[in-house]
Amino acid sequence: MNTIPDSKARVLILGAGAIGSFYGSLLDAAGADVSVVCRSEYDIVSNSGFSITSRKLGDRVFHPAQTLRSASDYRGGAPDYLVVSVKVVEGTDRAALIRPALGPDTVIVLIENGVEIEAEIAEAFPGHELISALAFVQVARTAPGKVAHYAYGDLTFGNYPSGVSERARRFAALLEAGGIRCTLTEKVSTARWHKCMWNGVFNPISVLGNALDTGHILGGAEGEALVRSAMQEVAAVAAAAGHPLPEQLAGQLVEGTRKAPPYKTSMALDYENRRPMETEVILGNAVRAGRREGVAIPVLESLYALMKMVERKLESEAGSPGAVSP
Amino acid sequence: MNTIPDSKARVLILGAGAIGSFYGSLLDAAGADVSVVCRSEYDIVSNSGFSITSRKLGDRVFHPAQTLRSASDYRGGAPDYLVVSVKVVEGTDRAALIRPALGPDTVIVLIENGVEIEAEIAEAFPGHELISALAFVQVARTAPGKVAHYAYGDLTFGNYPSGVSERARRFAALLEAGGIRCTLTEKVSTARWHKCMWNGVFNPISVLGNALDTGHILGGAEGEALVRSAMQEVAAVAAAAGHPLPEQLAGQLVEGTRKAPPYKTSMALDYENRRPMETEVILGNAVRAGRREGVAIPVLESLYALMKMVERKLESEAGSPGAVSP
Repeated sequence: MNTIPDSKARVLILGAGAIGSFYGSLLDAAGADVSVVCRSEYDIVSNSGFSITSRKLGDRVFHPAQTLRSASDYRGGAPDYLVVSVKVVEGTDRAALIRPALGPDTVIVLIENGVEIEAEIAEAFPGHELISALAFVQVARTAPGKVAHYAYGDLTFGNYPSGVSERARRFAALLEAGGIRCTLTEKVSTARWHKCMWNGVFNPISVLGNALDTGHILGGAEGEALVRSAMQEVAAVAAAAGHPLPEQLAGQLVEGTRKAPPYKTSMALDYENRRPMETEVILGNAVRAGRREGVAIPVLESLYALMKMVERKLESEAGSPGAVSP
Repeated sequence: MNTIPDSKARVLILGAGAIGSFYGSLLDAAGADVSVVCRSEYDIVSNSGFSITSRKLGDRVFHPAQTLRSASDYRGGAPDYLVVSVKVVEGTDRAALIRPALGPDTVIVLIENGVEIEAEIAEAFPGHELISALAFVQVARTAPGKVAHYAYGDLTFGNYPSGVSERARRFAALLEAGGIRCTLTEKVSTARWHKCMWNGVFNPISVLGNALDTGHILGGAEGEALVRSAMQEVAAVAAAAGHPLPEQLAGQLVEGTRKAPPYKTSMALDYENRRPMETEVILGNAVRAGRREGVAIPVLESLYALMKMVERKLESEAGSPGAVSP
């Protein structure tokens, strides 16, 4: 990439969990002025920063320029980039989180899972440039203020609804200076549907079998047939929504998963640890798109209905004595 | 019923678990000569019989006429009725269990869950009268030799493939003398599809949500929609297989379940207690019938595929250290 990194950029990260603090640390390493809003871990992060372990990129401590309890406390002018990496679960009002930190020229960068997640933000802030980014990364918060980076790290992004702006290129160059690879795409919505083919299928199936790994899921003929049926439905919805995917994609994803060592999806891990799951953005949005486009999606509807029941049961357990605390 | 009970009948029960010992005790109370084959609990049953508690029918101890380790040990001639109440899980060879106990005139009585469970037995023993019975009963083995009868108890039965023979009527009269109600049906296969509308739907859904009760399942709009979609598929398969069910049945079953206090299905209880589940006879046979009849059953296929994954995971856990013992 020949673009000059935006190394004087002011970046504010909303939702400094594992994803936000990991990418924040890379932007920081590249010279940007990186601040974070973090609520529950405010004390430890403002004292000691984030300790990030990474075999690939080296261990580091990331001290944010400003550690804030709220975006409205941000000082020194508005940020150039507002990175939104909050986990989107039911009840998350992203627009309300974004509004106080936004200057007239701030670019909003969504680093989030899921499909069709941008329209709500684009409508709330029509005057702002919007970058939509997909993270391919294995990273986890292991303790307050501590994050482990296990593998990968690349980002795929572009502007919403389409295109790649100069500022998107400069942001990519900054992240690449920090140590990861960025793939810029003119069609980020299509890229999200592409990722949904795997995420929207393996994630709910893994939960419904009570935290199955990919080996269990593909271990029998029925499992593979179910995965392929669900992927076919995702492909049909994506095509109807204007994002046709390659014919051979489902087969490639199944074979790639089969060849990799068995592992648990992020949603299965959330489920096992009784954390809220991103059911709505990962699967619910695909189901709603299918209904909107009039595509028959009996398998996705079944998976979604089962997921909602599981969530309801977890909620009722969390509210009852003796439940696992979140 | 005006038929004279077959009170001198010789009955041999294969699979004297909760169901078999409960109905055996009723036949015994009605005067029949009732023997049991029971393997794992042979010592306690041959010494002390079965202790059966029942608020509805009164507590009793049932001492079988003969308690046997194997059907081939049965003495005094062949039984008039061979009652098969073994749980049918993968690998159960019912024909092999039945064969040694069968005299030329023995009626085979299947008291079992599931749909399309008779053909295999009818083909294996073409010269024998076959009675197929559905139990509507809440009964559980609470300890070795101990059975609790909680509610209901009625049987619906008829001959396979259809009709109601004189011997079926006499068997019914005997059970009624023992204290329960029998409903005789000319179309027992249709009755099985009727029951499958509930069993084949609520059972797997309850397991897939990690032991959901009926309240969780019907607690949201998605859950009810899933139940109705699955029931519609069962109805379509049943109709294609020659057993049309009443139009209003799905609605009645949903409303009836909603009005009852929330409870866990038998399969959910098996799952929680890491016991083998009757997936194949309750759901697998319905799926195979759908494939055979060329009926589109994406929801049932999804539920079935998920159930097979769950079973595979349970098997791998049972084989690994630290697993719950069966």
